[in-house]
Amino acid sequence: MFPKSYYIIFISLLMSLQSKAQDRARDLGIQIGILQTGPYNSITDVSQVTVGHKTKIEGENIRTGVTAILPHNGNLFQMKVPAAVYVGNGFGKLAGSTQIEELGNIESPIILTNTLSVAAGIQGIVSYTLRQEGNEQVQSVNAIVGETNDGYLNDIRGQHISREDVLEAIDSAKSGEVKEGNVGAGTGTVCFGFKGGIGTSSRVLPASLGGYTVGVLVQTNFGGVLQINGVPIGQELEQYSFRNQLESADGSCMIIVATDAPVNERNLKRMAQRAMMGLAKTGGIASNGSGDYVIAFSNNSSNLIAHEANNLQLEEKKYLRNDDMSALFLATIEATEEAIINSLFAAQDMEGKNGRKVKAIPKEKVLEIMKAYQRIR
Amino acid sequence: MFPKSYYIIFISLLMSLQSKAQDRARDLGIQIGILQTGPYNSITDVSQVTVGHKTKIEGENIRTGVTAILPHNGNLFQMKVPAAVYVGNGFGKLAGSTQIEELGNIESPIILTNTLSVAAGIQGIVSYTLRQEGNEQVQSVNAIVGETNDGYLNDIRGQHISREDVLEAIDSAKSGEVKEGNVGAGTGTVCFGFKGGIGTSSRVLPASLGGYTVGVLVQTNFGGVLQINGVPIGQELEQYSFRNQLESADGSCMIIVATDAPVNERNLKRMAQRAMMGLAKTGGIASNGSGDYVIAFSNNSSNLIAHEANNLQLEEKKYLRNDDMSALFLATIEATEEAIINSLFAAQDMEGKNGRKVKAIPKEKVLEIMKAYQRIR
Amino acid sequence: MFPKSYYIIFISLLMSLQSKAQDRARDLGIQIGILQTGPYNSITDVSQVTVGHKTKIEGENIRTGVTAILPHNGNLFQMKVPAAVYVGNGFGKLAGSTQIEELGNIESPIILTNTLSVAAGIQGIVSYTLRQEGNEQVQSVNAIVGETNDGYLNDIRGQHISREDVLEAIDSAKSGEVKEGNVGAGTGTVCFGFKGGIGTSSRVLPASLGGYTVGVLVQTNFGGVLQINGVPIGQELEQYSFRNQLESADGSCMIIVATDAPVNERNLKRMAQRAMMGLAKTGGIASNGSGDYVIAFSNNSSNLIAHEANNLQLEEKKYLRNDDMSALFLATIEATEEAIINSLFAAQDMEGKNGRKVKAIPKEKVLEIMKAYQRIR
Amino acid sequence: MFPKSYYIIFISLLMSLQSKAQDRARDLGIQIGILQTGPYNSITDVSQVTVGHKTKIEGENIRTGVTAILPHNGNLFQMKVPAAVYVGNGFGKLAGSTQIEELGNIESPIILTNTLSVAAGIQGIVSYTLRQEGNEQVQSVNAIVGETNDGYLNDIRGQHISREDVLEAIDSAKSGEVKEGNVGAGTGTVCFGFKGGIGTSSRVLPASLGGYTVGVLVQTNFGGVLQINGVPIGQELEQYSFRNQLESADGSCMIIVATDAPVNERNLKRMAQRAMMGLAKTGGIASNGSGDYVIAFSNNSSNLIAHEANNLQLEEKKYLRNDDMSALFLATIEATEEAIINSLFAAQDMEGKNGRKVKAIPKEKVLEIMKAYQRIR
Repeated sequence: MFPKSYYIIFISLLMSLQSKAQDRARDLGIQIGILQTGPYNSITDVSQVTVGHKTKIEGENIRTGVTAILPHNGNLFQMKVPAAVYVGNGFGKLAGSTQIEELGNIESPIILTNTLSVAAGIQGIVSYTLRQEGNEQVQSVNAIVGETNDGYLNDIRGQHISREDVLEAIDSAKSGEVKEGNVGAGTGTVCFGFKGGIGTSSRVLPASLGGYTVGVLVQTNFGGVLQINGVPIGQELEQYSFRNQLESADGSCMIIVATDAPVNERNLKRMAQRAMMGLAKTGGIASNGSGDYVIAFSNNSSNLIAHEANNLQLEEKKYLRNDDMSALFLATIEATEEAIINSLFAAQDMEGKNGRKVKAIPKEKVLEIMKAYQRIR
Repeated sequence: MFPKSYYIIFISLLMSLQSKAQDRARDLGIQIGILQTGPYNSITDVSQVTVGHKTKIEGENIRTGVTAILPHNGNLFQMKVPAAVYVGNGFGKLAGSTQIEELGNIESPIILTNTLSVAAGIQGIVSYTLRQEGNEQVQSVNAIVGETNDGYLNDIRGQHISREDVLEAIDSAKSGEVKEGNVGAGTGTVCFGFKGGIGTSSRVLPASLGGYTVGVLVQTNFGGVLQINGVPIGQELEQYSFRNQLESADGSCMIIVATDAPVNERNLKRMAQRAMMGLAKTGGIASNGSGDYVIAFSNNSSNLIAHEANNLQLEEKKYLRNDDMSALFLATIEATEEAIINSLFAAQDMEGKNGRKVKAIPKEKVLEIMKAYQRIR
Repeated sequence: MFPKSYYIIFISLLMSLQSKAQDRARDLGIQIGILQTGPYNSITDVSQVTVGHKTKIEGENIRTGVTAILPHNGNLFQMKVPAAVYVGNGFGKLAGSTQIEELGNIESPIILTNTLSVAAGIQGIVSYTLRQEGNEQVQSVNAIVGETNDGYLNDIRGQHISREDVLEAIDSAKSGEVKEGNVGAGTGTVCFGFKGGIGTSSRVLPASLGGYTVGVLVQTNFGGVLQINGVPIGQELEQYSFRNQLESADGSCMIIVATDAPVNERNLKRMAQRAMMGLAKTGGIASNGSGDYVIAFSNNSSNLIAHEANNLQLEEKKYLRNDDMSALFLATIEATEEAIINSLFAAQDMEGKNGRKVKAIPKEKVLEIMKAYQRIR
Repeated sequence: MFPKSYYIIFISLLMSLQSKAQDRARDLGIQIGILQTGPYNSITDVSQVTVGHKTKIEGENIRTGVTAILPHNGNLFQMKVPAAVYVGNGFGKLAGSTQIEELGNIESPIILTNTLSVAAGIQGIVSYTLRQEGNEQVQSVNAIVGETNDGYLNDIRGQHISREDVLEAIDSAKSGEVKEGNVGAGTGTVCFGFKGGIGTSSRVLPASLGGYTVGVLVQTNFGGVLQINGVPIGQELEQYSFRNQLESADGSCMIIVATDAPVNERNLKRMAQRAMMGLAKTGGIASNGSGDYVIAFSNNSSNLIAHEANNLQLEEKKYLRNDDMSALFLATIEATEEAIINSLFAAQDMEGKNGRKVKAIPKEKVLEIMKAYQRIR
């Protein structure tokens, strides 16, 4: 009655509805790290951070999307956030990095999408910024767009993401629970040979360490030798890079780190650098073909940077001292590790381009292995 | 009969035809540096490098364009060139820099355009690459797009550059003489308060220093205190940044450095860094709002990088030693300085957005001053 | 009869004799990673690499030393090795990094020592180089000296390392088995709250991946939440950073990565960057006060760089392609992780400055825990 | 009659008159740039900055020394200054750069000396810091030592600088006039083929641009094609690099930039980067063998960084906005250019190692040429 592709879409939609909060790693007994999570265990635990997805599953071959992260809920161009970028492995097309490095801030939403749709990401950000009230005179905007390559499941050469898709993702951004797995920019990604996607997690420092929140969101599309909380899942499942010696570990991971701690751009770069240490703990190796980038920002209200100011007016800032950064480093490592695992647990089987299929990680089996290794009791 | 804007276009076109080779600084007796130029005194003196422009002068408000630089005349994706990027001042939206840094090469044409049209630049490069014979399987391409902000003369918010404009610029690329001034990405730019634009120059080392060629192309859109071959033209003409103390020196300069010398990516970065020293000699200061980037590549045939190779096959390369780089540094400095001056000399008066006018540098007067300072005899 | 300090020295010496090969983690059943080790499971598995130690245990307060790593057994100044540095966290006093970055090579032994003895390290290298046959005209040498702070157990303010100590370490360098634990630059270090020290490990790629060797040597002096092969040893032993929330995780780790693979300086930097991913897997967090540096070099005979050459003579090099680097990345990660664990297993209880004591990791207990977690069977 | 401080000022003024002010470039009519200098036209115009020299001219072969720059007159370790390093060309042995980059500050005097005496420089700084009142518990200090190679005139292999020489230079540091030319670390250096040395200059912004002071001190030892205020002196005197095509342009330049403007570490790095643009204007090319480093710091009292602070106490800072940096960039460029010229004008003929002679720049002749080019009227 209906063409095959319709069923695929239907099933995909059904599957995405099935994804329930109780399926997250932590709910299943996998406790990564020593710090507490925030209420949503999500990047949105950092107050004012919002996330929006636009998922494109169309026909047999389109499996892609857009994820937008907004650092705060005001006019980002007029009130910029201190920010930094760390390049874990630069085989990628990240837009906007040099201006972040030079000026120490971000002035736009952060867009994640596929490798050949970075241009659409920029267009969406430019349109969003130019049309925003108060930005009538804006003639320059530094669009931040990250990507991973979903070309195994998605007709990436078709460039199916448009400026409008990006605007939809931005406009749908909200706080609270964040959808994970096969959504937005994670729709067509593959991670450790399983279906990857979007994942998120957070940490809240105890009051004695400042009480600050660190939230991480990832778009997982990379390889390596999967470990979950230290357990050699990849080896146990006999699925890992180099197992047959010529298999590639390639792929990429975009990592967004948000915090409400009053951290300057230099220390944000140090936090960003630690996110790759969290990725390392999952067994990722930042292979040659991997575009592994971390973007970190602080939306602490003391330190927002007004676009306009009086001539020679000094900025008055309050920053954490270098000496007080280490707990935030640990929080970043833990939240990144857990966000990656969350992306795997939330992702579902996907059939895409040319009938290719990628299976979700077999959660039941994983949990059994975790139990055997005494990591779930 | 015709609306006013038609006349403006007509006159602009006429003026661009008038631009003659004899008007270049060197032909007028301004001899920058101690090294010889190549036959065209142009980036195209580096064998196989081609340049194409798409100039958009439409109505009263559109004064923008695209310039494409192709590192060689083969399939760039399949035969990449060693390359490097140096960030002189990162207030800019350069696309593609992190992959150049990570992998040490460029695999696409280099596109220059305006700040809000970087997305179109990427789209043009992606389309060009995907459609090229031999690239049927390509799913990832690192588009290199630089920009400066022509928003003073151009309706930049209108985003008038399209994917097709970029493809036209690429398709029209050719060797030999390169048009300078109000063309391509230089159509609407302003430099030292005068009309800026595209400029180019080259140097050929004597045989005893290797006989290699260095070519530079610039898109000039920056401020400072203009010096021409050391003569304080800005002060003499009473037009320079900070003269009235609150004037801005802002703006940007994109600099492309090409060479046929067998230079690896590390030493190309060092050459790129020297280009900013050439800019310094014109009186540029890399002001806060300036996006000053240098992209350097070598198209020496010994060192092109095949996209495909046998597993574990070693690359065999021939490189100049560190010890033999200094003359290439000097060549880069000289060619950059002269390319910037050439952009000023070739540019012509322009009327644009909202009736704003920017005058070309008054060449007669400049020459008089140069003579008074004994720099032209 | 003898003053107390004599006994301490005597016992320390006895203990260092006890350190047997069978105590290494791998011999006890802890198998880190999926790749094979070299014959010595040591940095010296990379042909021609030699290591020397000078251990200074004197009186009650001197617990320090020097470790020298020589990239090959010829004249290093005359035949330099391609090299790179990666800064994991730059709270440290590493000497020589900017020249490695600029020129892409190392021209001296690499010296590790304590924080306030970097000057002695430089003096030793300078003397060694100037006096070497063939270096009579040398007037400049880039000394590479790394350090960690052993001031908890050692009277570091006393600056007890001399130029001669460094020369002794260099002169004693040899291939084969490398002493680990409380020796050389690791004499007074502390890691994860246990006695740290020198550790080493190696990986040999299968022939299908090139058959190359990667060797790593570490000087461990850092904190975090210790994991051994994924098992949460720190938590099980109730000893880890932030447990009492205000404890510091500070300290440092120097990591030397050697390979015989024909890798250029850019790809060596990428390998160096991966070493921090190995450190991450042990639970290190690169805390604020940590000086975490990685120095990577390749001594492949095809690519050594002669100090002297004819004018304009090209260097002919053979390099692995970017595409073939990923297995070397994995090897670096695994060898670093294991080298750190080896440093802990080889270290022994130490009493030092002001009677302070640091215990070795309780190996028996650790092995029990590893068994409980099914990581040793 | 008058308070003591009046006498001090009076005597200082007298002394500055004695030092043949008429020999500095500016006094001879060479006016570089558009901004005003400070009262001493020296790095010491930045309040609290002091400079000390130890000059070693002994026998026929020792022609070397030490120059110390102290960022303020308090305990530098306990009150650190925001700082940054920029590497113009890293063929040099600068100590301390990675910690400046990581932590954004300097905690010691800055020492300049010769290439093979960096170790003595570190020792001097360590001793100075450890012995200072209030530093009894200090176990780690990041010594900043820069160098250039004076081996043409000096028996550099003899390593004639000692820890004590460095302490003498530090202890003799004072405000007010700074000796230039053949003193301290400039005793044996060579620049553009003439005798080089120490030079200094400053700029004071007009009140409308903030009224801040920028001071620069240089140790000049490099080559190129000398230009003085744009006039081709090197060519006119027929002395410049590559004139006979195989001559080297090698050598180095250490540049210290001080300011009282409230500038954070990121913007200090941008200022440091501009110093190389000032060097470019003198005709320097940052040749392969050149160690060209810039160290920039701000000693504005609002932003000093206390070594000790309460747990989690925020730093309250006041910084200039990015938008207000451009005039400081120009000031840095101008002061660097003039400091280099000052080093040449102050230097005197020197006979040194093996009877080698280096002549000072022929000032009379230079002034004639400057007049012929209408640059002195």
